[in-house]
Amino acid sequence: MPTHQIEIHYCKQCRWLLRAAWMAQELLTTFDEEITTLTLKPGTGGIFEVRVNSTLIWSRADEGRFPDIKELKQRVRDQVAPEKDLGHSERS
Amino acid sequence: MPTHQIEIHYCKQCRWLLRAAWMAQELLTTFDEEITTLTLKPGTGGIFEVRVNSTLIWSRADEGRFPDIKELKQRVRDQVAPEKDLGHSERS
Repeated sequence: MPTHQIEIHYCKQCRWLLRAAWMAQELLTTFDEEITTLTLKPGTGGIFEVRVNSTLIWSRADEGRFPDIKELKQRVRDQVAPEKDLGHSERS
Repeated sequence: MPTHQIEIHYCKQCRWLLRAAWMAQELLTTFDEEITTLTLKPGTGGIFEVRVNSTLIWSRADEGRFPDIKELKQRVRDQVAPEKDLGHSERS
């Protein structure tokens, strides 16, 4: 069984803990067979980055916004289970 | 600034993600200066264990129950900031 580690690095000054923890729960629910650990990492200065096994898959600085949960799940899926169909969230 | 890593190992079969994520947010709020990472780790078989820098501070198997959030914070405090006063939650 593959092992995948996800990290959500968020800005605590910006009070982004709640959205980081929400996304964490969404990912741990959708990918509960694929994820071995999900790490929440408080940071500063407006940071919001998501990594899968150290690969950066979302950076607020680069994208200029937060991910929609559907696109975040697609990017995680592409790393941890490329063949996995995300069901309804893929077809809307 | 000291660096502390917390891990919450929870049973996904028992659907304990939500309470694990809730406790994670409580700890990241109370100890936002002391915690560098908080890792959620899905497991099986009824596991619910909390570690601070690999030191086991709560085990559902040992205690026979989940921690009250006040006692969990006190145990974390004793590891990461022994001099820290937890305010109201200490005096009730």
